[in-house]
Amino acid sequence: MKALILSADDFEDSELLVPYYRLKEEGIETDIASVKKGKIKGKHGYEVKVDKTLKAVKADDYDILILPGGKAPEIIRNDAEAMEIVRHFFKMKKPVSAICHGPQILITAGLMEGRRATCYKSVAKEMKNAGAIYEDKEVVVDGNLITSRQPSDLPAFMRETMKKIKK
Amino acid sequence: MKALILSADDFEDSELLVPYYRLKEEGIETDIASVKKGKIKGKHGYEVKVDKTLKAVKADDYDILILPGGKAPEIIRNDAEAMEIVRHFFKMKKPVSAICHGPQILITAGLMEGRRATCYKSVAKEMKNAGAIYEDKEVVVDGNLITSRQPSDLPAFMRETMKKIKK
Repeated sequence: MKALILSADDFEDSELLVPYYRLKEEGIETDIASVKKGKIKGKHGYEVKVDKTLKAVKADDYDILILPGGKAPEIIRNDAEAMEIVRHFFKMKKPVSAICHGPQILITAGLMEGRRATCYKSVAKEMKNAGAIYEDKEVVVDGNLITSRQPSDLPAFMRETMKKIKK
Repeated sequence: MKALILSADDFEDSELLVPYYRLKEEGIETDIASVKKGKIKGKHGYEVKVDKTLKAVKADDYDILILPGGKAPEIIRNDAEAMEIVRHFFKMKKPVSAICHGPQILITAGLMEGRRATCYKSVAKEMKNAGAIYEDKEVVVDGNLITSRQPSDLPAFMRETMKKIKK
């Protein structure tokens, strides 16, 4: 079991760190991938090491994908390689957990049509325009897709994410 | 099952938020107690609501105690009520999980004599002087007492903490 987190500078710190530490608590190897090597820095100043560039990621090596929020998704959604990675997870029906602004990445990848999902309130209109069935709930599970709205939803977000892993 | 977190302003954000969200993921009611009502603010700017003042806490109501680090323990260790709360947990052999500067609270309460434990490196000398058997490890479990050094130890810290809860 191996997990992949896609993020970039200005990530929402708790939405990256809480899943990252939770997966490691479970003994799951977890890589953070971003647009360039080195470190990425959160909105609150936390820094994390980038394990792999998006270009170097082999999506086939991973069993679950985590998409934290913040301003990072705005960078990730403009990267062609990132789009290929997320499409791979959907094609293979592997779990994808996206929180807050994280679902923006899935919107750009054209993966939200007809899917039940949630996101940060300011992203809701964009999500509906992409054909998703938006629900204002702490967590929405639709097949392989798990979505939440904000940091205070992290307990429900991780509860549902861990269920997918333990299956 | 009910959990209590003791903290104050300038807490280490991830050391409070990661256990807080993890306990809630598990469905455990978790109260944050501090020296005064309102909100407390972490070193990285996260704010959390104070559920109870230290004065209002009935230690008997809780099954596990979490002591995050940062500069908050310096405030908590100078509070007489906080000292009574932590002594209650030790007397009743209920689990106490302290990370980073968190163990300073236990040092002041006079609870570290002969106990195996770890802490943030700058606290090590103080811990040894208090009679503890200091170990430089990601997590040390000695009976009811679970200690860790720093944020990167949070996966091991929470793994051992959750084992105590699930017993």
